[in-house]
Amino acid sequence: MSYASVLPPAAGGSPRRGRPGYDRETLLRICVDVFNVHGYDATSMGTLSKNLGISKSAIYHHVESKEEILEQALSRALDALEEVVQGGEAMAAPAVDRLEDVIRGTVRVLVEQMPYVTLLLRLRGNSEVETRALERRRTITRRVGQLIAQAQTEGAVRDDLSARSASRLLLGMINSIVDWYKPDVETSAETSTAALADTVVALAFSGLRTS
Amino acid sequence: MSYASVLPPAAGGSPRRGRPGYDRETLLRICVDVFNVHGYDATSMGTLSKNLGISKSAIYHHVESKEEILEQALSRALDALEEVVQGGEAMAAPAVDRLEDVIRGTVRVLVEQMPYVTLLLRLRGNSEVETRALERRRTITRRVGQLIAQAQTEGAVRDDLSARSASRLLLGMINSIVDWYKPDVETSAETSTAALADTVVALAFSGLRTS
Repeated sequence: MSYASVLPPAAGGSPRRGRPGYDRETLLRICVDVFNVHGYDATSMGTLSKNLGISKSAIYHHVESKEEILEQALSRALDALEEVVQGGEAMAAPAVDRLEDVIRGTVRVLVEQMPYVTLLLRLRGNSEVETRALERRRTITRRVGQLIAQAQTEGAVRDDLSARSASRLLLGMINSIVDWYKPDVETSAETSTAALADTVVALAFSGLRTS
Repeated sequence: MSYASVLPPAAGGSPRRGRPGYDRETLLRICVDVFNVHGYDATSMGTLSKNLGISKSAIYHHVESKEEILEQALSRALDALEEVVQGGEAMAAPAVDRLEDVIRGTVRVLVEQMPYVTLLLRLRGNSEVETRALERRRTITRRVGQLIAQAQTEGAVRDDLSARSASRLLLGMINSIVDWYKPDVETSAETSTAALADTVVALAFSGLRTS
């Protein structure tokens, strides 16, 4: 496949041959937005074509199938999340600090890659691509559970909770961000995300009660 | 509409006219399971007919449309969740105890009405029925936020967190239960759910760190 002939989205200019051309990045992003509105299963190549304003054959110039778009979008989310976990695991620090690093990094990925992570979190596992993605997601949850278990062994995390359940509840709390978070328009995206990460860390580590 | 002629699911007996009949409850439950596997938007009346093993016209004997099934299923989840919040709000107790009551009740509803709550949590808001349900869900989140704010005023909940964000993260943590919780087969459903509620309350109120 060659992408050389594909135009970047026209910024005020008139697109060649009367229809917009997309770079691969923009095409992927628009398709993911459509998946997130209608659901992956309910989205046909026809729906994508309508939303992109280009013909199906123009889409096939970029990708072989709807599933290839899904796979690329899910990889983007999963690669970023796995990188965060790996970074935390590799730190020379107590497990509880590595866990905090993973929590902050995960919040950052969710905000920065929100459409891709949203797609991942809404998967139903109806195809092999989806099943593989869900397995990668489960592995991330297990690795976070292992960090919690290590922090329990080191005495920094209470041991009256199952590390497995705690990992799922913690990630459930973080994942909810894609459903409600809107960046604070008064501050920079970076400051806004850091404040959100502070709130999540405070709640996860110390809970709601005044200490 | 009359439901008098509709058979309950045949328990070992041979269904009349060679196909199973359903009571309204079982029909609703099976349709919700199908929605949860394929997504509401991607599920046609034909898909429901195939999964139920009855004709479309037999489904129309129970309900007027796919949307009516959705509306009934969502009401089941929302009525139960609203009842829990109302019960907590009406308690003569400090706000932090009312909040705990709401957390425990919400965990119970999620476990007991899991298919219906799962459907609610996966809504995309693509129709008026969905938009109304999402508005009821937002109202629940706001009411939990108000309980948290009251508990902050009473000095029982830390006031360095926004009650609004805390409410969303707390409910996000609880809502994740539908994605991963499997009842402990060794104990009764009631004991298993109570243990889950204990874990959620411990994490929500005191966090992961050893105190």
